[in-house]
Amino acid sequence: MSAPERVRVAIVGATGYTGAELLRLLLGHPRVEITALCARDKLTPRASSVLPSLAGVCELPIEPFDADAVARKADVAFCALPHGASIECVRALRERGLTVLDLSADFRLRDPAVYAQWYGAAHAAPSLLESAVYGLPELYRDTLRGAKLVAVPGCYPTASSLPMLPLLARGLVRSDDLVVHALSGVSGAGRTPAASTHFPESSEGVRSYKVAGTHRHTPEIEQTLSSVAGSPVTVTFTPTLTPMTRGILSTVYARPARDGLQVEALIEAARAYFAGSPSVAVLDAGTLPDTLWVRGSNRAHVAYFIDRRAHRVVARARSTTS
Amino acid sequence: MSAPERVRVAIVGATGYTGAELLRLLLGHPRVEITALCARDKLTPRASSVLPSLAGVCELPIEPFDADAVARKADVAFCALPHGASIECVRALRERGLTVLDLSADFRLRDPAVYAQWYGAAHAAPSLLESAVYGLPELYRDTLRGAKLVAVPGCYPTASSLPMLPLLARGLVRSDDLVVHALSGVSGAGRTPAASTHFPESSEGVRSYKVAGTHRHTPEIEQTLSSVAGSPVTVTFTPTLTPMTRGILSTVYARPARDGLQVEALIEAARAYFAGSPSVAVLDAGTLPDTLWVRGSNRAHVAYFIDRRAHRVVARARSTTS
Amino acid sequence: MSAPERVRVAIVGATGYTGAELLRLLLGHPRVEITALCARDKLTPRASSVLPSLAGVCELPIEPFDADAVARKADVAFCALPHGASIECVRALRERGLTVLDLSADFRLRDPAVYAQWYGAAHAAPSLLESAVYGLPELYRDTLRGAKLVAVPGCYPTASSLPMLPLLARGLVRSDDLVVHALSGVSGAGRTPAASTHFPESSEGVRSYKVAGTHRHTPEIEQTLSSVAGSPVTVTFTPTLTPMTRGILSTVYARPARDGLQVEALIEAARAYFAGSPSVAVLDAGTLPDTLWVRGSNRAHVAYFIDRRAHRVVARARSTTS
Amino acid sequence: MSAPERVRVAIVGATGYTGAELLRLLLGHPRVEITALCARDKLTPRASSVLPSLAGVCELPIEPFDADAVARKADVAFCALPHGASIECVRALRERGLTVLDLSADFRLRDPAVYAQWYGAAHAAPSLLESAVYGLPELYRDTLRGAKLVAVPGCYPTASSLPMLPLLARGLVRSDDLVVHALSGVSGAGRTPAASTHFPESSEGVRSYKVAGTHRHTPEIEQTLSSVAGSPVTVTFTPTLTPMTRGILSTVYARPARDGLQVEALIEAARAYFAGSPSVAVLDAGTLPDTLWVRGSNRAHVAYFIDRRAHRVVARARSTTS
Repeated sequence: MSAPERVRVAIVGATGYTGAELLRLLLGHPRVEITALCARDKLTPRASSVLPSLAGVCELPIEPFDADAVARKADVAFCALPHGASIECVRALRERGLTVLDLSADFRLRDPAVYAQWYGAAHAAPSLLESAVYGLPELYRDTLRGAKLVAVPGCYPTASSLPMLPLLARGLVRSDDLVVHALSGVSGAGRTPAASTHFPESSEGVRSYKVAGTHRHTPEIEQTLSSVAGSPVTVTFTPTLTPMTRGILSTVYARPARDGLQVEALIEAARAYFAGSPSVAVLDAGTLPDTLWVRGSNRAHVAYFIDRRAHRVVARARSTTS
Repeated sequence: MSAPERVRVAIVGATGYTGAELLRLLLGHPRVEITALCARDKLTPRASSVLPSLAGVCELPIEPFDADAVARKADVAFCALPHGASIECVRALRERGLTVLDLSADFRLRDPAVYAQWYGAAHAAPSLLESAVYGLPELYRDTLRGAKLVAVPGCYPTASSLPMLPLLARGLVRSDDLVVHALSGVSGAGRTPAASTHFPESSEGVRSYKVAGTHRHTPEIEQTLSSVAGSPVTVTFTPTLTPMTRGILSTVYARPARDGLQVEALIEAARAYFAGSPSVAVLDAGTLPDTLWVRGSNRAHVAYFIDRRAHRVVARARSTTS
Repeated sequence: MSAPERVRVAIVGATGYTGAELLRLLLGHPRVEITALCARDKLTPRASSVLPSLAGVCELPIEPFDADAVARKADVAFCALPHGASIECVRALRERGLTVLDLSADFRLRDPAVYAQWYGAAHAAPSLLESAVYGLPELYRDTLRGAKLVAVPGCYPTASSLPMLPLLARGLVRSDDLVVHALSGVSGAGRTPAASTHFPESSEGVRSYKVAGTHRHTPEIEQTLSSVAGSPVTVTFTPTLTPMTRGILSTVYARPARDGLQVEALIEAARAYFAGSPSVAVLDAGTLPDTLWVRGSNRAHVAYFIDRRAHRVVARARSTTS
Repeated sequence: MSAPERVRVAIVGATGYTGAELLRLLLGHPRVEITALCARDKLTPRASSVLPSLAGVCELPIEPFDADAVARKADVAFCALPHGASIECVRALRERGLTVLDLSADFRLRDPAVYAQWYGAAHAAPSLLESAVYGLPELYRDTLRGAKLVAVPGCYPTASSLPMLPLLARGLVRSDDLVVHALSGVSGAGRTPAASTHFPESSEGVRSYKVAGTHRHTPEIEQTLSSVAGSPVTVTFTPTLTPMTRGILSTVYARPARDGLQVEALIEAARAYFAGSPSVAVLDAGTLPDTLWVRGSNRAHVAYFIDRRAHRVVARARSTTS
């Protein structure tokens, strides 16, 4: 209740699904005070007129982005803009000294050449990119303390990397034979209506898209897994659209590094690895997780299985999309 | 319209999802006349009182099973009973000379020892089992002509085997490194309510079950793939429950048998293989299929992709569950 | 199987939801041969490339509309175009002698003034309008035989009018106190993506739209009910979007015309009224119907209830949208 | 963060949908400390083993109910048991001095005769019933302060009564012609699987149940509306199951008390009435609300429309079920 303890936070891109969900979570945070909302459209003197769930909850205006105005009102800014649109906004806010957490893909890939290859254009701010820290606390917790620019990980990469971190870090699985089959809710596609997200086309059906290594989250998954494995990792990644609004269930198939590996060893390694991670729960052996269990939260569940007949490790995580 | 041309058909187990959907499809078949419906419960003088979609469409009674009565009314019987319950019914109908198509799992596994291992009891009619033909026309079309006992394939095995038949038959992929990740609608679990199929538990969430080689459809998939590969095949199979009523989308990950394999070669092989199969369509390169496209039909779509970066073939099929 | 008995049918507007579903139903009709498919976009030499469910089922081209070409190929044409776009196409086909069934709203309202009031423009073909017969067989069966232009009723009006026909025709309920609360699946909004039909906005939520007598189906419902009541009828009509793809469940609240009216009298009246209507089933007393029971069919179920405490008749029907 | 300020709260019936959702909401409440969880089954030393969303969030045991143990640990208890099962538990906790909020139907109907009529048995604790306060703050805010036994309103009654309170209190509508058509998500049916809540039966379909004044929430709605109207009110109430997990959208049809009533007058009256109610938002004219906007919250949105053609007021509210 003591206002002075609260951090003053702005959200830029507050009307997209990512920004709006972030706003919902931060409104319930005891240490945060939301002081400014910006967007590129849907501007309004009263946020609830475009985000009706805010009626009676948050009545700030939604304003066009003005770096000086944001800098006066906030110490920390979250940018939830589409990739490409984010860079200028992040630069302006960093120049004014704000701590920025960017939810776009613009600062996630460390190597500008990889960015150019997957996003089809040279990175517009390579020096800013160098200063960014990838916002996966499970991997970079120490560096993140005090970071001024955080690249918040993508939805698929988070769910796909998390369960593999302990296994690759401890050398329990081989890093050269990885298949990632991930299921996503539809909100991950954002708020803009499209044929593939039209209700009659997405309800009661499942379909994959950008199969066989063509989805832009592939290099992000590989970057994280390579970091922890200590050598370059290539994955086959299949994103799949399922008829639910939110959530990711990612299944990673890997080969055990040695014969006779037991599931208990995987769980034990994971529990040790995630001991300081309040948002990650490692499920008991045999527990088959469900995206519903983390829906609407910022939490992730990981679980492990061993297919003794086929000599494979099956690692899974579920987390939420916006 | 000429009644004499129609085959007289009985459905035993008409009130389960499988039997009811079979009834719906056969009611639209120009060469079939439904003459008897049997079930173990929900008996009624008028089928529409327990299957309301039949109101004004089919007003046969649903009667307890009596082999002599069925033999008088029908030349062909479909048995849509749970595994275990099917054997006695099939035996009685075969003894009376009917052609029987059994939709349970009881006659699908050729080796009684494998049946015993996965279903937990010795097979009750091994000699009858010897006479059964596995009802996948794409593999056994000639033997099926004139067969008197047909074991209709399971839903996961059909979707998971179909796309691999041409690839293994032509030696285009290796048979020793296969992962099957299959998504199913909820009707595959049958009509009996359970916690996992309760709407609030299954809507808006996805979850796998019987992960890592523990689902009973595993040996059925392996039997079919081994037949066509000519050597024993082991797969890692992950069935996943998704929030839709019907449909299967199965993705199979395999290693190409040689470098430089092109997706066009896969499609060409599949089109040649399925040339005589009116229910299977091979999609054009780049077309990403959807369970909605086969919903309510008896059709299957197969599609192929190559992940050049990770050297994998991704083969997929979608078909319908009951 | 005898081709000469089949009617040659063209579908104009084959790529919208209405046209595509009509095509699906007609492909299963033993007396119909589909000979031409036209559309305004998504033109293709092979229908399955834009409607993948047709792969291996129907490989006609989808062509731009050309009245002469359609007249050469077909005796009957269905027009499934948006309102406004339909009139010119219908006129051209009628001039060439084809029997036309129009699925748009353009010929449903008999009075051009009412059309102008609700659709915001004068009717472009009032003389053609005069020749149209409203395609509700339950009301106009005799006139429909031999009709050359049929205005196929809307989805809400069919479900909302059907259960009231027997009650108003027999004077069992008052015609001056009617509330229609109708629930619809999302496909009724058509194939064009919009914010309100975006999966994350329409799944897991229900909402009404065009509340309080502002939806264009209101005058169509009133026209039908007025015809059978013999005097002008006004209704309060609330359409509601529900998270399912297809189906309409319409509930009509009315006052009984006399005290002591029993539900059996309503059912008896309805069964007599619909005796010659193979597509309408009147459910038994106490049976609570479900849109699932008619999904994918051309059938409607009607049911009746009496609220003795509040002196109201509750009449319901469910049918399918495209 | 200051523990002494928190109220110690027990939840009895923590494993049902109502109890589990209450637990989720209270875990986020800054003034509440959850100190005990009880249930009749699913007992466990660690709540997360039966409610997996609690993994890492709440690790209390779920214990059998023991009034003395609860009294030692908590000052306030919520009972979320089925009706009938609640009475004994409430009595035991009240005898030990706890403040009890009962979420069952056992203390909602003030008149034991009405309870007996709708619930089929005499009320087992009529004197306790006399002391209960109906927990609708919008109607009984003052009495609720200091109440020791609160009967928490049902889901349908809350959504159906709220929008009518201002209209009946100000005499803006007639109280003798009310129709309530309410749509509910499936979680309202509770956690026990049943045929009607089996996913394949409840997805993609809508159906009403207990039509025409037979649902037990009817007298609760009437009790509240009668209180505010000052005279006995009878409603026609139709509950409808829709394919979503959570939420209620209730539409009430009423006759205006005078000609020329404007929607602005309704909104103004409602805003004045709900001025002190932080959980109720009155939407702007023309805003068509959606259950999604209150999903997962404890909030309700109300909206008003006037059908000038048919002389009716359409009042609506949406709130959440457990």
